[in-house]
This record gives sequence, structure tokens and C-alpha cells, in this order.
Amino acid sequence: MAAVTKKKKVIIDTDPGIDDAMAIFVALRSPELEVVGLTTIFGNVYTALATRNALHLLETAGRTDIPVAEGSHVTIKKATKLRIASFVHGSDGLGNQNFPPPAGKALDQSAAAFLVEQANLYPGQVTVIALGPLTNLALAVELDPSFPKKIGQIIILGGAYSVNGNVNPAAEANIFGDPDAADIVFTCGADILAIGINITHQVLLSDVDRKKLEQSDSKYARYLSNILGYYYDYHMDAYSITGVYLHDPTTLLAAVDPSLMTYTEGVVRVQTDGITKGLTVFDNTKKTYGEITAWCGKPTVKVAVTVDAPAVVELIMQRLLMDD
Amino acid sequence: MAAVTKKKKVIIDTDPGIDDAMAIFVALRSPELEVVGLTTIFGNVYTALATRNALHLLETAGRTDIPVAEGSHVTIKKATKLRIASFVHGSDGLGNQNFPPPAGKALDQSAAAFLVEQANLYPGQVTVIALGPLTNLALAVELDPSFPKKIGQIIILGGAYSVNGNVNPAAEANIFGDPDAADIVFTCGADILAIGINITHQVLLSDVDRKKLEQSDSKYARYLSNILGYYYDYHMDAYSITGVYLHDPTTLLAAVDPSLMTYTEGVVRVQTDGITKGLTVFDNTKKTYGEITAWCGKPTVKVAVTVDAPAVVELIMQRLLMDD
Repeated sequence: MAAVTKKKKVIIDTDPGIDDAMAIFVALRSPELEVVGLTTIFGNVYTALATRNALHLLETAGRTDIPVAEGSHVTIKKATKLRIASFVHGSDGLGNQNFPPPAGKALDQSAAAFLVEQANLYPGQVTVIALGPLTNLALAVELDPSFPKKIGQIIILGGAYSVNGNVNPAAEANIFGDPDAADIVFTCGADILAIGINITHQVLLSDVDRKKLEQSDSKYARYLSNILGYYYDYHMDAYSITGVYLHDPTTLLAAVDPSLMTYTEGVVRVQTDGITKGLTVFDNTKKTYGEITAWCGKPTVKVAVTVDAPAVVELIMQRLLMDD
Repeated sequence: MAAVTKKKKVIIDTDPGIDDAMAIFVALRSPELEVVGLTTIFGNVYTALATRNALHLLETAGRTDIPVAEGSHVTIKKATKLRIASFVHGSDGLGNQNFPPPAGKALDQSAAAFLVEQANLYPGQVTVIALGPLTNLALAVELDPSFPKKIGQIIILGGAYSVNGNVNPAAEANIFGDPDAADIVFTCGADILAIGINITHQVLLSDVDRKKLEQSDSKYARYLSNILGYYYDYHMDAYSITGVYLHDPTTLLAAVDPSLMTYTEGVVRVQTDGITKGLTVFDNTKKTYGEITAWCGKPTVKVAVTVDAPAVVELIMQRLLMDD
């Protein structure tokens, strides 16, 4: 008999999103994880649509036992003019496939309240996998100042460390979506692992992989191969590549198998306005600065610096292709 | 008989500064260059002291034929609260050696007026080597909008490309000194080569090299070995290294022998406020962004990406140790 290891409780904070859908399916099919809930946020789509898509994806997977808590419709500073990446994921967020509306509903509880509740229920045991702007997590920190110490780990897809951004040369999309929230979260003192596009731009799903998903018996794989078309087109237009970056699934796998990446540790701060709004600056130097800086005395976070990209792609494919 | 090659006319915009002194001496001892003037700026010291030191250095070298034009005492936005790096170079900027005041005087002309005049006198033939904040060059652009096209090349020591800064994790000192001026210069359309601390932190003068300068017959070498003590102490305190970074002389050598570095080309913009004030963001991506960015449509500059550090140190030492 195989040894029974305790599953890692995860909450996925998500704005589905094509690669969010893939990450959620990989999570549901990973025996290492127990998905205790999804929380939703604007980003790839508006929050209301993110909630609809989260419910739809759980229904597709037959996992209506997992609750969805709807997140903020505005940034932490209440801005309603949001950057929505419909040109990446389609106007429905899922490759314009005209899926029917979900039967289920979100909890009455807000995403922030749900995050705080779960952290209190299982102190030190819940991992949040944050795949969109960090508004819900910043609200959880505001709601309960002990949240950073009660939550287990926060794995963030966000930032561009020593590389250009993907919204503009300075900023990565999730941080750009709510830079003020991101700065709150990065400096809140929680156990944080940040995975930037310097990492996820190394993890490419090829055309051959997509073909394998398409020809699979797994309903998850076939579902994803359908919605991936829009995402492949975007990558060809924006990056002139035949393949798609696996931002969200790669981040999810950091919870499944931390050994897939290596990390270094330091303070990350976020520029909140000006032409480099949303830029993450990671203090990675050994210099002793002569002056007090905005990085001084702030809690450190882990920042991923290398990834075993072939192993990540292989594990994602394995989870998606395995029998239903 | 050796072929007579035309010397490259250079103006050194400088805030001496210990490594500025070294760069100026290397320039005066480089047969490839004709130093047509020094212009002064705040940075390592206040502008008035920079002027005094520039005159003193030329008198020490017996080159009072070279004019000095005093530069701005304030930033382009007229800020008078300046960051002065006296803790790096000593309160006199030259290692606290109590040098006598110079006998000579600066021109009546401002640095910006001198830069514009020389660019008009020798269109396309003058190289500016900018070793401090870029206020004088930005004022020259404002004074004469045709300056960017009339100046030959501007070689800038400034910025931190894909690495942390040296004032704080975001900003390098020269750009931090006047970020608004830097953004004007980087986007003015001139032929610009930017050399950041990602390059100059590779070029270290060792303790052994300093001993060689000390024991040399060359007055330049002995002068520098004296003032270098303060600079070595700073590097031990700030970086825990026995050696000093050759920021300014390395930049100067890019005019002497461009083959010592390799370059890539793209748009550089500067963040002018917030916690990352003075940060340089170089658009080095091949991505086609979906939105208009602050980098779109701006002129490109060259940014140094590799340097033959041993060859740079060797050439600097050779120029300083050769017979007077």
C-alpha cells in the first residue's frame, strides 16, 4: 500500500483566462494538492466573468464541491479603469468558445474574507496560488493584519525580474493590474515565492504538445486544446512564436514540486506610478547602501531564478493526459 | 613614418571625483583623443568644486590650454537639493588631499553654451563623454534643438541595465542625480552609447595595480595612487572588496577603442519619481506590445552589454604608467 501523504491545501486566486484554466485542471488532477477554493479577480477578464469562468471550469471538471469566492471588482485604490487582457484570452476569457453559463453560484463571502477565514481555520497550512493582480490578497492583509503570518505560503505569478515586462518594457501584467496591492503583498511579511516572466517565458507549450492534447482521451486535454487556439494566435502576433507561455500552470507546479525551480531571497518593491508603473525591483545586491532606501527593513521574499522547463512541461502534460 | 590619423575631439562632462581624475588623465595621455574642453557638473561634488577640481587637474597635467566651462548648479527642474557623493570621493572630491586652489578660471560661457558652440563649430565631429548627471547635455538640447544631430556621439556613464543600482536597488548615481535631464538626453535622438554599472562593475582596479601606480615614475600615476586611498576605503565599506570600480575611465576608453565593448540597441526611458526614481528601463524585447507604451516611437540608443574588462584595465594602466 502506498504511503498516504498529507495533501497541500491550496486556494487558487484566478482570472480565467486560458492558462488559468490549464492551471486549475492541473491542480484538480494533482494528487499532491487539495483545492479548498477558488477566488476570482479581474485581469484576463473582468471579475464577474472570472467568477463565471471559475464556476464553469469546476462544473466541467465535475468538482462543484469546491467553493468559489468572488473577489474585488476594483483595484485596492478603488480604480475602476482596469486593464483587461481580452486580446490575449478572448472576450469571454476562454478563447471565445460560447460556453453555457454555469449552474452554480459563488459564495456570499468575498474573496478576501474567504482567504482570511481559511488562513484562520488552517493556520500555516494553506498555500495561495495567485495568478492575477494581487488585490484580494492585499484586502486580506488589510482585513486581518495577522493574515501574513497565518497563511502558509503565497506563490505569486507576478513581476519581471531583470527582464522587460509584457504590458510594456517596464511592467508585467499581473503587477501592472494593481501595483499598489502588489506592493502591499510583497512587503506584508508572508512566506512569498514570486515567479516572474523571466521564469515563465522559458516554459513553452509547443504545437506538438497541443496536438497531443487534441488527440487525447482526457476530457480536460480536449477542452484545453480547443480554447488554446486563441492563445496560440496571440503568441504568434505578439512574440512571433509557435507555442504559448505556460505562466499559470508553471506557477501552480511550484506548489506541487518546489524542486522544479531555484530561488533567491531579497526585498521586492513595486513602482506605483509614472512610466514604469507596475515595475518590480528586487534588491538582489550585496551592496551596503550609504542611504536609507525604500527597500531597507522590509521583509524578504523568494524570487525564482531558474526553472527546469522541460520537466515542467512534461509534468503538466502528464497531469492533463492521464486517464479521467 | 606612421600614418597620421585624425584625433577624435572629445569634451568631458565631469564632476571630479577620483575616477573622473583618472579618466581625465587617461584622456590627456591618449594619442587617439584631442580634449577640446571640460564641462563641469554636480554629482561627486557640487558644481563649483567640480570646476575648481577640473582646473586643478588640468594644471597638474600642465594642460592649461584646455578650457573649462562651468555647468549647472541645479537640476533641469531647478532643484537645489542635490545628492552629492562626498562619502565616496571625500569632501574635496579628490580624496581629501588639501590641494591648493587652481590659478586659472573657467570660461565665462556656460557648459551648455560651450557644448552647443563646439557642436556647431565641428558638426558631427565632437564626442561628449558624460561622467556625471546629464543636466548640461539636457540644457544644450533645450538651448539648440539641432544639438542632438550636430553632436558627434554622446557616451554616457549612466544607468543600471538588468542589475540593481548603486544609490538604491533601483537607481544608478548619475541618472539619480537628475532623472528628468537623463530622460531628455536618452530620448533626444543623438547618437548615444550608454554604459551602465552592469558594465563598470566588471572593471576593477586591484590593490596590485594601485601599488604599480604608486611606484611609477609617472607623475599622473603617483598623483592618482595618492587620491585613490579614500576610494579604496569606500569600496571596502560598501562592497567588501579590495579594489575600486573604474566607472569613468572605462567610459572614457569607449571613445578610445570602441571594440572593447559590445552593444545592443533600443529605447531607454527614465523613471523620474517614486521609489524607483532614476531607474533606467531599456526596451530590449522583441515583443510587439498591444498598447502604446512610453517607449514607442522614441529614438534608440546603444547600450553596452559586454566589456573586455582585463583589456580595459591593461589599457588604463598602460596610459597612466607610460613616461611623462
